[in-house]
Amino acid sequence: MNNITFLPADVTVIADQDENLLRAAMRAGVHINSSCGGAGVCNKCRIFLERGLVTGEALPGGGWKACATFPVSDVVIRVPVESQMDRKVVRPLTARKAASWIKAQDEVIDWKLHPVVRKHVISLPQPSLKDSVSDLDRLKREVVQGRLQSISLEVDNQVLFDLPENVRSNDWRVTVSLMEGPKKDACRLIRVEPGDTTGQHLAVAVDIGTTTVSAQLVNLESGEVLEEISNYNPQISYGEDVISRIEFAKKKEGLKTLQKKIIECLNELLNELFTNTDREKDALSFITVAANTVMIHFLLGLDTRFLRTQPYTPVATQFPPFRAIESGINVPAHVHMFLGPCVASYVGADIVAGVVGVGLNRHPELTLFIDLGTNGEIVLGNQDWMACAACSAGPAFEGGGITHGMRAAEGAVEVVHIHPHTFEPMVLTIGGRKASGICGSGIISLLAGLFMAGVLDQQGKFYNDLKTDRVRPGRDGWEYVLIEAESTSIDRDIVFTEADIENLIRAKGAMFAGYYTLLESVGMGFEDLERIILAGSFGSYLDIDQAVTIGLLPDISRDRFFFAGNSSLLGAKASAVSWPVTKDLYKVAKMMTHFDLSDSPRFMEHYVSCLFLPHTDQRLFPSVRLD
Amino acid sequence: MNNITFLPADVTVIADQDENLLRAAMRAGVHINSSCGGAGVCNKCRIFLERGLVTGEALPGGGWKACATFPVSDVVIRVPVESQMDRKVVRPLTARKAASWIKAQDEVIDWKLHPVVRKHVISLPQPSLKDSVSDLDRLKREVVQGRLQSISLEVDNQVLFDLPENVRSNDWRVTVSLMEGPKKDACRLIRVEPGDTTGQHLAVAVDIGTTTVSAQLVNLESGEVLEEISNYNPQISYGEDVISRIEFAKKKEGLKTLQKKIIECLNELLNELFTNTDREKDALSFITVAANTVMIHFLLGLDTRFLRTQPYTPVATQFPPFRAIESGINVPAHVHMFLGPCVASYVGADIVAGVVGVGLNRHPELTLFIDLGTNGEIVLGNQDWMACAACSAGPAFEGGGITHGMRAAEGAVEVVHIHPHTFEPMVLTIGGRKASGICGSGIISLLAGLFMAGVLDQQGKFYNDLKTDRVRPGRDGWEYVLIEAESTSIDRDIVFTEADIENLIRAKGAMFAGYYTLLESVGMGFEDLERIILAGSFGSYLDIDQAVTIGLLPDISRDRFFFAGNSSLLGAKASAVSWPVTKDLYKVAKMMTHFDLSDSPRFMEHYVSCLFLPHTDQRLFPSVRLD
Repeated sequence: MNNITFLPADVTVIADQDENLLRAAMRAGVHINSSCGGAGVCNKCRIFLERGLVTGEALPGGGWKACATFPVSDVVIRVPVESQMDRKVVRPLTARKAASWIKAQDEVIDWKLHPVVRKHVISLPQPSLKDSVSDLDRLKREVVQGRLQSISLEVDNQVLFDLPENVRSNDWRVTVSLMEGPKKDACRLIRVEPGDTTGQHLAVAVDIGTTTVSAQLVNLESGEVLEEISNYNPQISYGEDVISRIEFAKKKEGLKTLQKKIIECLNELLNELFTNTDREKDALSFITVAANTVMIHFLLGLDTRFLRTQPYTPVATQFPPFRAIESGINVPAHVHMFLGPCVASYVGADIVAGVVGVGLNRHPELTLFIDLGTNGEIVLGNQDWMACAACSAGPAFEGGGITHGMRAAEGAVEVVHIHPHTFEPMVLTIGGRKASGICGSGIISLLAGLFMAGVLDQQGKFYNDLKTDRVRPGRDGWEYVLIEAESTSIDRDIVFTEADIENLIRAKGAMFAGYYTLLESVGMGFEDLERIILAGSFGSYLDIDQAVTIGLLPDISRDRFFFAGNSSLLGAKASAVSWPVTKDLYKVAKMMTHFDLSDSPRFMEHYVSCLFLPHTDQRLFPSVRLD
Repeated sequence: MNNITFLPADVTVIADQDENLLRAAMRAGVHINSSCGGAGVCNKCRIFLERGLVTGEALPGGGWKACATFPVSDVVIRVPVESQMDRKVVRPLTARKAASWIKAQDEVIDWKLHPVVRKHVISLPQPSLKDSVSDLDRLKREVVQGRLQSISLEVDNQVLFDLPENVRSNDWRVTVSLMEGPKKDACRLIRVEPGDTTGQHLAVAVDIGTTTVSAQLVNLESGEVLEEISNYNPQISYGEDVISRIEFAKKKEGLKTLQKKIIECLNELLNELFTNTDREKDALSFITVAANTVMIHFLLGLDTRFLRTQPYTPVATQFPPFRAIESGINVPAHVHMFLGPCVASYVGADIVAGVVGVGLNRHPELTLFIDLGTNGEIVLGNQDWMACAACSAGPAFEGGGITHGMRAAEGAVEVVHIHPHTFEPMVLTIGGRKASGICGSGIISLLAGLFMAGVLDQQGKFYNDLKTDRVRPGRDGWEYVLIEAESTSIDRDIVFTEADIENLIRAKGAMFAGYYTLLESVGMGFEDLERIILAGSFGSYLDIDQAVTIGLLPDISRDRFFFAGNSSLLGAKASAVSWPVTKDLYKVAKMMTHFDLSDSPRFMEHYVSCLFLPHTDQRLFPSVRLD
């Protein structure tokens, strides 16, 4: 670890030898012009080494390329005049507390290994003429004797198909898989394997988002996550948001197509999880799924017509576990799929899983849980009560409806600074690849940066009299050129338009009006919030200050903010590891009071007030001051 | 109704105008030579009209053809010398008590209409923003409120698929189908239909026998049987008895083939039931099935290898209800199939259904229940205890292993008298058709007839010095020509061989040794029997005396015998009509003590003593006296 000091700002950060100097500067709050995001192509991030040793790329005209240069010792770096700002530094980025806080939760929450399917090894007495009960009765006898007297055991018919072979092939020693039922002391025999297979006991936890589907392979012996992967939800081809997909589902074969697509996607993710970890699908015991209500309807092939219109009625909000092969999932017959419970049409199992995943239901602190996914959903409450609402924010924060928006993947712009005089950007992409678009955190960062640098007014319109070529008229009105075509991987300028900004302002306005309305409805205000938990898979650089700057988050003490990452997947995984957590999902879903904001005049009033940067009521944002 | 008097025996019976004089004579116990079974082709059944009016066929040489002549008034008939016997009459046939006794049971047994699936009409309040619970929750709320507070309601996922449409299309008025579960106050929502469909509520009851599959369509509104049909079990092509089918099942695809065949057969029977009655399959609510253990294994595709060898272990004896389409049955998705419980590998759900069907479990009288199906199974007991056993009798009494054996269908010889001097037969076929074979009752009748007429000795060998051409050497040793080729529909002599007789003696010996062993094991004897119930689908003429004569049935007072017909189907139907009866099946299966006769030295001793006509111990058959 080395000290990196940036001059003339004279700011020092500690960095390891794997962090390039551009990233270190971003962390330090030091602006260095850079528009290719760290891909090494724009050559704008020139810095000079004043002291110490570096390794990397020296530039022809002298100095080093910051994005391709790494410290070898403590170093002192001078930022050249074209990158310098009047203020010594931008703000350093808010430290992320995700890891620490959620980890603490992990310890507090009783996620003891207690999966809904458990494997037990039992030895059976051999049959004889004196004891010639059926193979199944022999097995049931031992299962019941080995456990509770009062156990009630149901049996899946498919257990019977190879039962005679399975009980005999390892000298009457078998592993039974018992699945807990909703009732106490009742369980279901779903599988009998010859010999001891307790070492082969895996689950898959899935989060089906409107945009992204993520899955984890969990070892149920240890609780360890063996692999996590994700992919786009292939339904995107039929509509970016849930509303357009519901419209598509009305067409002939539309619903079936959407169902088929998500099943294909799950099958691919499953294959990949098992291939990547060199595990056999045969070791899979069950699958847990968290998803929003619409995605669950599509997964099951349920009619979504009435989700779309008032009073927004889902077909069902709770779904008994079913055998995954019945839905076309390519897994062994014993594998059941557990879908989490939903609250309403637009507050789904993903939110319930998220709330349980972060432990909101186990703590007394008044907490605002915000999921900035494709729709924006919020939950306000604590262990004793919860109110929830959907904000119809749209997919802007996942890059949807934004000209160059994209998912948080390699090549996505994840953080931006704008130089307040030159209006030149400092851009970092995920993985330091050539940019192909801008992800959620990058979009927020860019909007806040442009606003703070005085490139945008409070309505989100560009000042068009600035001394820069970066602000120019485009097809959708004025736009800001973030990255020139030659520094991108898409051979087009990556721009940010007034139409993009309008979408973002509407989206953040819907979110903020949602918090306000929920708090108001319980007679509380922002000052009462003890915690704000941010769910959603932002890049690593979402900055609280920037999000507050644009009015997306309330302007309260920064130490009350926590990042949960993909909390829906977190909940799905917790529910895979722990059957009590699954039961908590049902308790929480029942406990949540749902507010239909579309029906609330107060929400509409708040929404209109929010269509400003940061807000029409400046008093709500004391920390946001333009320089 | 007319009085028919036969001379010279001077016996009178009452007959209606639809009964031909040959059948009337058989009932009266009067022998008239006839070998075509009443088909009108052998011209041997000549009789003379002494008084009264008849209509029918006069024969060229004078007199009338008895099988084609019907009484118009009271008549006096003279039987010509070639048909006359020394004794005035043979015995009149034992009156059958089937109808009356089982009918009485029907009234005694509480078969109130209480099917396992019940339909209820409910009206739902329309959803509003104030009450926007999911369609399913709206439905469940009404179901639970309309019934017990404590009801626990599970929901089949397939209910959800058209739920939004179904609840809305008849102004929120629906019919729900609720299926009782094994637990009290717990039921399962399996179907939701728009409007009131309580008038469309049918069940199918099925008996899958090794030889024959029978099915009834039952109206669950009234309990009425709308249609009953049956067909051969198509698995017969792969083996006549269960043992040869189990051998076939071991081959590659063997088990699958047997499963496919029985499913096809059930599909055909179902189609026929609905076509014949002009009903829609959509009105079908569930299916109940009784069958022996091996047939159930084949139906489910379960491994039968271990049923075949000691200690004869079935895979399972109880099977939770499952959705019929999962087995390839072409019915709507909500239709569940209820398989009755079995006791052991060779005492199946057919026997349990039979015992419950005849009400053995509801009466204090000591009863011997005998099923002379493909295997012979027996149950001894009453409402308090039951012992059961399989006798490995083989399929002889269903015509299996008998040269010209056949099922009780049109053209089957069902009753035979043999003239004790001329050894000429008097034959009746089912439906008065040209004979194509001999069914179970005909076989017993023939064996008894030949024995009583002195054509056979006690070992079942033909006396070959009789003055008749009917006893002749054949391919399998000596044989008796029952019907000449020209009077058959198969253009071959229908014969009865010593090999046939050996098979029959072994079969009846196994049965009788079974009764003896069971009775002995509970310290009782034949004199203790208060009732003998004969199950199995014999033709209309099985004669107790003849069955006693060959030693198939115990020689006790004839008024203790009752016929139950296809009691397995009776039980399946009772279980369709009444859920409490289904529960009784489980109680009875649990209550039965199973004796494995193959392991019993006493059984082997008894068996050897039974390989005689009627038995080596003549004291057991006081009523059987050769003239």
